[in-house]
Amino acid sequence: MATGNARGAHEKEISSLRPFFDPRGVAIVGATRTPGFGYLLPLVLRRRGFAEQVFLVNPAGGELHGYPLLTSLEEVPDWVDLAVVLVPAPVVPQVLDEIGRKGIRCAVVESAGFAETGEDGKRLQEEARRVAASWGLRVIGPNCVGVVNTENGFSTVEVLDEALIPGPVGIVAQSGVFGNILLDMLPGLGVRISKAFTLGNRMDVDEVDALRFLERDPYTRVIMMYLEGAARGRELLSTLGEVAQRKPVLVLKSGRTEAGSRAAASHTGSMAGEDRLYDALFAQTGAIRADSLEELVDLARVFSTQPLPRGGRLGVVTTSGSLGALASDAASSAGLELPALSPATVARMREGAPRWMSVRNPLDVGPSGHFHKAMLAVMEDEGTDMVLGIYVVPYAVVKELEAMGLGWEILVGDLAQVRERAPEKPLVMCCLGKEEFVRGLQGLAGDGIPVLPSPERAARALSAIYQYAHRVRYER
Amino acid sequence: MATGNARGAHEKEISSLRPFFDPRGVAIVGATRTPGFGYLLPLVLRRRGFAEQVFLVNPAGGELHGYPLLTSLEEVPDWVDLAVVLVPAPVVPQVLDEIGRKGIRCAVVESAGFAETGEDGKRLQEEARRVAASWGLRVIGPNCVGVVNTENGFSTVEVLDEALIPGPVGIVAQSGVFGNILLDMLPGLGVRISKAFTLGNRMDVDEVDALRFLERDPYTRVIMMYLEGAARGRELLSTLGEVAQRKPVLVLKSGRTEAGSRAAASHTGSMAGEDRLYDALFAQTGAIRADSLEELVDLARVFSTQPLPRGGRLGVVTTSGSLGALASDAASSAGLELPALSPATVARMREGAPRWMSVRNPLDVGPSGHFHKAMLAVMEDEGTDMVLGIYVVPYAVVKELEAMGLGWEILVGDLAQVRERAPEKPLVMCCLGKEEFVRGLQGLAGDGIPVLPSPERAARALSAIYQYAHRVRYER
Repeated sequence: MATGNARGAHEKEISSLRPFFDPRGVAIVGATRTPGFGYLLPLVLRRRGFAEQVFLVNPAGGELHGYPLLTSLEEVPDWVDLAVVLVPAPVVPQVLDEIGRKGIRCAVVESAGFAETGEDGKRLQEEARRVAASWGLRVIGPNCVGVVNTENGFSTVEVLDEALIPGPVGIVAQSGVFGNILLDMLPGLGVRISKAFTLGNRMDVDEVDALRFLERDPYTRVIMMYLEGAARGRELLSTLGEVAQRKPVLVLKSGRTEAGSRAAASHTGSMAGEDRLYDALFAQTGAIRADSLEELVDLARVFSTQPLPRGGRLGVVTTSGSLGALASDAASSAGLELPALSPATVARMREGAPRWMSVRNPLDVGPSGHFHKAMLAVMEDEGTDMVLGIYVVPYAVVKELEAMGLGWEILVGDLAQVRERAPEKPLVMCCLGKEEFVRGLQGLAGDGIPVLPSPERAARALSAIYQYAHRVRYER
Repeated sequence: MATGNARGAHEKEISSLRPFFDPRGVAIVGATRTPGFGYLLPLVLRRRGFAEQVFLVNPAGGELHGYPLLTSLEEVPDWVDLAVVLVPAPVVPQVLDEIGRKGIRCAVVESAGFAETGEDGKRLQEEARRVAASWGLRVIGPNCVGVVNTENGFSTVEVLDEALIPGPVGIVAQSGVFGNILLDMLPGLGVRISKAFTLGNRMDVDEVDALRFLERDPYTRVIMMYLEGAARGRELLSTLGEVAQRKPVLVLKSGRTEAGSRAAASHTGSMAGEDRLYDALFAQTGAIRADSLEELVDLARVFSTQPLPRGGRLGVVTTSGSLGALASDAASSAGLELPALSPATVARMREGAPRWMSVRNPLDVGPSGHFHKAMLAVMEDEGTDMVLGIYVVPYAVVKELEAMGLGWEILVGDLAQVRERAPEKPLVMCCLGKEEFVRGLQGLAGDGIPVLPSPERAARALSAIYQYAHRVRYER
């Protein structure tokens, strides 16, 4: 019995979070006829197919969207296992008490006005925490928007339809707005989500719980996380170390500087820890730390769509020598190698190439029209482990082609074919120029090939996936 | 006579470049009926109002677009002062000889196939250089697309109409494609151009000449430059030092690493210099070095639209605490200060603010609806020298407002009014989320307020303009 106890307790703790994502029934406490989230959430859940599982609670009674407004939690059926709390902060401890008494074991508290507002709020939050703990209630929040589960379409926040297209990326965000913004932004960049946690002030459920949950979630292959200080530093360290062995964990942490720490502390009520400590910590665990929000998103795009490379040898094909040089600089600084092309690739490219074309790596095809051929050749080159294709063309050329009744797609060639030619190699594209053109190229690339907006960012993301693959292969 | 001689020679040298941007007449050598640039350029120039100034040369004779194809340069009128050369590389030396003999003193050689292709190309370029020098001919190129002048609409390359909207930014780019891409991309980001040089292999005119020319150009207030190694290192140093005293010079240089240097060398035929040397060099001169292409563009946006700040005290207003924290980190790392708000601002903001709102810097207004009020207050706060407004809102909120027949603009308020409230302070916005929303906010901000896509980039650009202002004010 002794052996495996910790693990068993652990499993149980994690499985206690299941109703947050897949509730049998949901009580919405604070549903209301006044415009706002208490008015909208029932509509959102009904639209997502949860009409029969939703129960609205408001002491004022009456009706909303055809549902009766139950005057007390006691009227909610006993099989309801999740409560979403939208009432003003001062009432929250009492509502949590009623939820606990009802036998509900999970609550999302979206209300703000707790530790993030100062001493009074801290006391209120502590009171709420004590009440919840006395009932063994698991709480996400307060000051959050709860969860999203694309597997069944359940969410405690209104999100765009495209954010619910299922995919491999699990999200852990501290603040609600920030989580919301990620959910708005990521689908347009081809990042598909499995589950999202917004943790808010982390009265109970924190990033350690979220990591453990996503580690076991079969739909989640990659975890992206935004942290503003760790609630439990030691546990975060050991958990990251274990989770990162199984799934890439991409982390952005604010509070790098004193000013950032103060800002973070004031809005989700947590003190951001010592930054250098975190850097060391992340490096030990194998979690991948992003330097900026943009890098976090770039990493999510590349890690969720590309295979892990065998090595760090990068082949670059470009229509602009300058952008090729910038990519080479960034790749090289980030620890990637730009190997010489194999003799077979050189021979293949020389054939039919214009005199001015230098067949080397980066392979600058200029306006030769050999971009597609070069992409195929460099993908198939045995000396490369990953490929970056930089495609730019002056928009005047696009317009000329259009005037001739041609689409500029013919210049780029079939990118799906390029992708298939070496499925084991990460492939990233880079494109910049007129907005319409960049969007068009993203359309041609589809969700399976990330198109990044700068050569430096593309090279850094490829370096990160190489570093991770290397660690997984050789250091474990 | 001795005093001022160098300066006089200098002025003369710079004024010798004038026909590149404002020619009396242009001979297009290599105009041709086959599709391509020799076919298009006459059309482009005619459309821009240069119909009467264009003369086409092609030994084959005949007609193109209603122009006679002159069989020799001798047939071109004597007042023509610029030649654009589009013939194959091997013929270029001979064509330059004919141009020189004709008495034309400026030539743009767009043809590729010179030093960028290897030893044979280097020899050919050297031959062309000797011929040009023997006639005192000023040459831009080879392997470039020449120039753009928005003042009169003249360009030796086809560009989009919006790229010709006049503005304050002078561009120096080595490669033609890259210059083209900048011209495609910048107008959509609100960067208006004065003049652009693409220098190619720099057989004669180089970045030193271009800097000197733009220094004196009254239409150019900000210079952005992409370098792949200096043709004349010492002159570049002294020139940058002088020019940067008068106008901000933003520089991106590739060739930071060996791989980047090799890549740069192979495409415009120049060896990129030692990177650390450049870093020191730029720091001495007061030129502002961008770390990436994106940063170069961010800097151009901020420097071309914002005033120089009096100091480095940044006020941040945000609807997302997380983004505020990331901005604080980046600003603080980059040497900016986040001062406490003045008592007057605090009092003003507390009035009517919800209980949960912490009135401090960054000022996180959350979903209070107080964003506009906060922007006005922080702009007017005497303790701030510059302001960053971070506006994000979950797209679901935008959709709700639309369903109520309202535009989300009401949430943001009048940004022009914010701008006017403190015209002496740089103002930058940051927005991310769903693409439509971000574009919408850029529309509200207009060209006068840059909207950057990440808090870190916004903070770094503000830091750069502060550093520059500080140097201009206190170190000269």
